[in-house]
Parts: sequence; structure tokens; C-alpha cells
Amino acid sequence: MALADLHTKIDLQNSSQLSYVSTRLSYNHRISLRPLPQPHNSRICCSVTSKEVQAPVTVNTEEPKKKPDCYGIFCLTYDLMAGEETKSWKKLINIAISGAAGMISNHLLFKLASGEVFGPDQPIALKLLGSERSFEALEGVAMELEDSLFPLLREVSIGIDAYEVFQDADWALLIGAKPRGPGMERADLLDINGQIFAEQGKALNAVASRNVKVIVVGNPCNTNALICLKNAPDIPAKNFHALTRLDENRAKCQLALKAGVFYDKVSNVTIWGNHSTTQVPDFLNAKINGIPVKEVIKDTKWLEEEFTEMVQKRGGVLIKKWGRSSAASTAVSVVDAIRSLVTPTPEGDWISSGVYTAGNPYGIAEDIVFSMPCRSKGDGDYELVKDVIIDDYLRSRIKMTEAELLAEKRCVAHLTGEVRIKFPSSRILQLTL
Amino acid sequence: MALADLHTKIDLQNSSQLSYVSTRLSYNHRISLRPLPQPHNSRICCSVTSKEVQAPVTVNTEEPKKKPDCYGIFCLTYDLMAGEETKSWKKLINIAISGAAGMISNHLLFKLASGEVFGPDQPIALKLLGSERSFEALEGVAMELEDSLFPLLREVSIGIDAYEVFQDADWALLIGAKPRGPGMERADLLDINGQIFAEQGKALNAVASRNVKVIVVGNPCNTNALICLKNAPDIPAKNFHALTRLDENRAKCQLALKAGVFYDKVSNVTIWGNHSTTQVPDFLNAKINGIPVKEVIKDTKWLEEEFTEMVQKRGGVLIKKWGRSSAASTAVSVVDAIRSLVTPTPEGDWISSGVYTAGNPYGIAEDIVFSMPCRSKGDGDYELVKDVIIDDYLRSRIKMTEAELLAEKRCVAHLTGEVRIKFPSSRILQLTL
Repeated sequence: MALADLHTKIDLQNSSQLSYVSTRLSYNHRISLRPLPQPHNSRICCSVTSKEVQAPVTVNTEEPKKKPDCYGIFCLTYDLMAGEETKSWKKLINIAISGAAGMISNHLLFKLASGEVFGPDQPIALKLLGSERSFEALEGVAMELEDSLFPLLREVSIGIDAYEVFQDADWALLIGAKPRGPGMERADLLDINGQIFAEQGKALNAVASRNVKVIVVGNPCNTNALICLKNAPDIPAKNFHALTRLDENRAKCQLALKAGVFYDKVSNVTIWGNHSTTQVPDFLNAKINGIPVKEVIKDTKWLEEEFTEMVQKRGGVLIKKWGRSSAASTAVSVVDAIRSLVTPTPEGDWISSGVYTAGNPYGIAEDIVFSMPCRSKGDGDYELVKDVIIDDYLRSRIKMTEAELLAEKRCVAHLTGEVRIKFPSSRILQLTL
Repeated sequence: MALADLHTKIDLQNSSQLSYVSTRLSYNHRISLRPLPQPHNSRICCSVTSKEVQAPVTVNTEEPKKKPDCYGIFCLTYDLMAGEETKSWKKLINIAISGAAGMISNHLLFKLASGEVFGPDQPIALKLLGSERSFEALEGVAMELEDSLFPLLREVSIGIDAYEVFQDADWALLIGAKPRGPGMERADLLDINGQIFAEQGKALNAVASRNVKVIVVGNPCNTNALICLKNAPDIPAKNFHALTRLDENRAKCQLALKAGVFYDKVSNVTIWGNHSTTQVPDFLNAKINGIPVKEVIKDTKWLEEEFTEMVQKRGGVLIKKWGRSSAASTAVSVVDAIRSLVTPTPEGDWISSGVYTAGNPYGIAEDIVFSMPCRSKGDGDYELVKDVIIDDYLRSRIKMTEAELLAEKRCVAHLTGEVRIKFPSSRILQLTL
């Protein structure tokens, strides 16, 4: 059941929540809603049995909105309509980036600013979110952006408060998260990063554009995206993406290598499920030169075992070789992901993105964020691709990654606002507040 | 006196050198010329009095040419003329990059591969030069390039031998050098990096395209470029550049900030001289909205003192803020520098580049690499701008940076092949071998 429907039901049942909920649903007249600080849970609750946990509470603190600090040259005001070259440009868009002082952002920001993502007539504002610890580095990034003289980059602001930085964001690229180091467990990441994405979801809900598109890159990105969207009930859940484009790109490259063709000949590659080692790179629906991969690569053992493992483990191999995670190619894949939403998907092809499963046609569990094949008309929105084949092998793999995501979801129930009540009959009733 | 002229003279005077020199001058039928390894000078000779030092010797070892290792997907051969989309593309160009595993390259390579530098119809081959120590990181970079699926990137090869990697290079972007850390003296860099650039000059001379364009980024870049061109006598000295574009960009930004205009309104900014703290950002010839800067910014004290210092020290400030040197904006400025050679310079404007001073119209000492105002027709070549004003203030600053470069040149005499013989009359005769 979608969140909005439930709100309505709660309204009818519980009049004491009425003013709070109606404020949350007020799309046009927004008030900065800032939750009271909550103590950080040092341990996450991963029990599958019931446990009453506190749902996220959004409280209107009625603090005045504060703009993040503009930086240097970008504090100038100007009228783009006044310039001969700039008056044909589109309206400025606001792009918020978390983890802006990190390595992925350090690649991504300069790509965004250069115009290669949104095109040569799209001026942009970059809103950089960092931490207190990284604030000086954030200033360094802003200085380097100044020194790069990008004509399309018209505003840069920096801040450490998501409620300020996400103000009117048209895009939110959520990169900031503790990165996965060598040997680090996924559960550790869930614990560390979940709180951050709950907070950022609330901030987006309070201050971002109602049509903001959110791409979550910080790992574990599927579950972080779920936490984020659950904490932003006024923004359509469909607007939230978890980045699996790097996995798709890697899968294309490995299929091309095996087939002895260049990577531009590979299409229709889906990454199913979680951006983790359970991800399922789909060779059943993929094509090489328009021909099904299985007709081109006859080595089924390679496809079922080595290929999948190669894609799943590519990140780890790179960390070993390079000594750090793959910032540059991750940034490239974020660019690819954005471009795929703002330009029409080529005829007959599709792209992979981790999106909300509500109403999916594949029988995947509802109410998680799962990578699936998508097509876009280039309007920022997407639709799920219907004409895909799912055989027993693929189904079994999808089930495994689905199970992982459901387990992750249970681990972060305290952050998504799910309260489970165990009845004596051990039937579980699940309420979404 | 140019090197080529001297070779001819030596030929006539010394027949024992004839076969060696004529091989060096054979443009069309090239043989891989590899010098015998020379002991590394642990201390540099910086005496201005005479000292006989060994000139660089190029010896034909007649080793077979070896191609650097192609990487993964890029080992495939393909016929670009066979594809519907690719048959209208230009001929593949070879771009060699030294220090390819470093941070500047990590930004630059992905910009080159994306097509934003050479355009959407220019396929490229990237030839990555690293060191034995960085070889695994180099593989990591190649893997990330694979995973980025850039359609225009058709070849990637990696190697640690400049004689292999520079083979047929159309562009050589020489980034690799020990970077200047906080508090490091410029003299330390001269010592450490000079040998590298002498060797790379020899390698370019032996195997690169006769029309290769070389951009030296590794510091001290002016003197490194001088060393490099002196060791590549068969390549026109005019083809060597030392990067001062980042300084130009920084100067534009600071002028814009002071004038309260956006940086796209600032033009005709020259950086004169050395890419060091003696560099001279020229506000005399610079314009804001087409008006001389001095008519827009009346604060002469700021222009003469603060502005110059701000530009000169920007790099140091950034190192402090950011904890490392400014890789991203340096890469952007390399892109700017290349673009300025392959696209016509906008009417009335110019760009700064550290180029060989032979025949310069400004009265700057001959036979050094000095940043000066250049214009290009977009053919890869450039001409020096003649209509610039030089007043007493500017002249005195230019003299200071010239003096620094002449001193640097003396310090690397053992690497440029200059032998000084002190006569009893203390008249100094300078021979260029």
C-alpha cells in the first residue's frame, strides 16, 4: 500500500494526527520541517520478530529557512536573459550533491559543470553538501570550480545542513556515505549509513522541488534509497533511484570481451536486484549486435558462473589494484544514469536502475528498491520494461537478491517507520506510518 | 642557434658522428633510438661558472620496437569504416599520457575519452605511461576506462617504457612528475624531474609522430619542457608547451571577482614567464567586457600587489584547504589548452602558453620556455600575439621571471646538452651539441 493512501486512512482514524499529516501533504505551501534530533542508534535492530521501534517523526520547528553559503564568484547575481549568448539558455536547474568533498563527487561535479550531462544550453547551480570535518575540502572544491571557468556553472553553494543545501533541488545526487573498504561487511554499512539517508530523506521532503529526482550512490544504495523515500512521503517514490548503472556498464564490457566485439554492440543488459554481490546481471535478455547473447556466447557455464561473478566482484578487484574504490567510473555511470532520464532511451534498448517495486510486472516483492529494466521518454520519468523473459535460472537468482533486500529492509525498520506487532497467532501485521 | 643547424655543422666538422647524426635527422625512416642508461645525478649542477658536463647521447641500440600492452577490450581490432555510425569519424589519434596513474590524469583521461576535448567524431587511442610501482594502478585505470563504455575510446595501452608508449603519439601530455608538496623547494623539483623529461624527450624524438604536440604539466613545467625539447631535436621546438593555462584561468577568475562580473566577461589575460611564484599575470592588456581592466578596476594597489599574489599563491592555498594539489582544475586547464590549439581562438582574444622563445617579439631571452600570449587557427599550431603593450611595471616583472628561468636553465645544463667552457679571459663560449 502506498504511503499517501495510508496517510488518508490515518487521518480518518486519528484526528490528533490530522494537522501534522495535512502539513506533510501540503505540496504548494511548504514549511521547513525539521525533526527533533534523535539519538543515534549504535546498534541496528535486525530481528525478524516484532519489535516496536520509533517511527520517524517530522516536527515543524518553524526555524527560518537559511540559504547555504554561496561561494566566491558564484555569489554574483546576473541576468542570463541579458546576454546575447545566454538568453537562449534553459532555466537554471539546482543540483544538490552530498559527499561533495569525496572522490566520486570530485569527478562528477566537473562533469556536471562542463555541460556534458545536461547539455550546452542548460545553466546549473551546484549545491554541495559536506560535513563539518570536510568543510575546508568543500571550499577547495568550490575554488577549483571557480578556477575552471565553466560558462554554464552559475551558482555554487556549500553547506553542512541538508535542510539548507537541498532547498529547491531539482536533482539530488546522494553520494556521501562511508565507503566500503576492503573486507568491510555490508551490515556495517547499513548501520553507519542508514541514519544519514533517513535524515536526508526528511530534508528533501521539507525543502526540495516536489519533482526532485534522487539518485542514491552511497552504499548500500538500494536500502539507502528505500530509507530515503520512506522519509520523504511528499515526493513520489518513483523519483528515487539506486545506482546500478556501473554494474550494467561492467556487465556490458564483460559480455563484449567474451564475444570479441566492442562494447557498443551490447544492448538490453539488465542488472536485477541489489547493488551487491547478489546482483543478477541478466544475460538471458541481453543482446549482442541485436542477437540474444546466448546465441552468440554458447559457453553457458561461463555465462552462469564466471560472467556473473566477474561483474559482482569487479569493484573488489579494482579496490585491490587501484588502492581505492572506482571513483571515476562511478561518476561516469552517474552521468549515464542522469542522461538516460533526460534523453529518450534508444529504440528497443533499456537501462537498469534501482527503483521502487510498487506495481512491478515481474512478481518482485513490493515496497523495496530493486534494480529493474527501465525506459525513459527523456522527461526525467521512466517506465518498467514489460517484454522481458524470466526463466527458472533467472527467477532463482532474482529470488536470492530479493531475499537479501528484504533482510536489509528488516534491519532498517527503525529508519523506514515500519512498526511490527506480533500477534499471538504469529500473524504479522505491518503498518506503515 | 637552433639544434638542427648545429647538427649540420657538426656533421661537416666531425665525420665520426655522421651516421649517428644523420640517423637522428632521418624523418621518414625512423629507427628506435635508445640511449645507454646513464647514472642518475643525485645532485644537480647549478654553478653559473663553467663546468664540463656530459651532453645527452643518443645511441641506436637497434632493439626491435615493442608495442605497449593493449588492455582488455581495447585489444580488439575493428574497422571503424564498417559501422554506420562510425564511418564518418575522423582518423584515430594517439594520445600518450605520462603519470597516467596519478590524480591529474585520473581526471584528464576520462575527459579525453568522453569526447569533450576532441569532439564527438574523433576516435582516440590512449597510451598510458606509468612506473613499475604504479603498474597495478595503471591496470586499475584501464579497467575503469573499460567500464565507462566510451564509444570514442578505441584503444588503451599501458606501459612503463616511454619508447614503447610514445610510439606514433600525436599528442603527448606529460603529467608525470614528483608533485610539489607543502614547503617543497622548486630546486628540489628541478633535480628530481629533469632526468625524467630528458629521457621522455629522447623517447619522443625516437618514436613519436613528427608533428606531435607536447604539453608539459609536471613541474617545474617550463624548464621540463625546455629539457624535453632539447632532447628531441627532430621535433619542432614550437610543438612543446608548458602549461600555464591554469594560472590564466585563475587570473581571470580573480579579475572577475574584483570587478563583480562573471568570469566569462574577462578576456585577453596573459600569464608571462614561469609557472611559478614569479609568474606575471598581465592586467595591463587584459579586458573586462572589452574594456581595459585598468579602466574597470581603478584599485592599482590591488592589481599590482594583491591580484598578482593571489594568482601566484592560489595553488598553495588550495593544497592547504584540500590536502592535495588541484588535480581537477589542472585537468580542466589541460583540456582548455588542447581545445585552444584545435579550435580557432575567438576573434580579438588570446590564450597563454609556455612556449619556446626563439624569435619572440617581446625582447624576452631566446632559448627558454616562457609563457606568452598565443593565437591559434585551430590547426594545432599557434602564433605569438604582437599587439600587446608592455609598460615599465610589466617589463620589470617579466625580467624577474625571465631571470628565474635563465637560472633554472643553468641548473639543468647537463640535461639540455649545453657545454660551457670558461676561457682565461672569462669570456664564456656556449655550444649546443
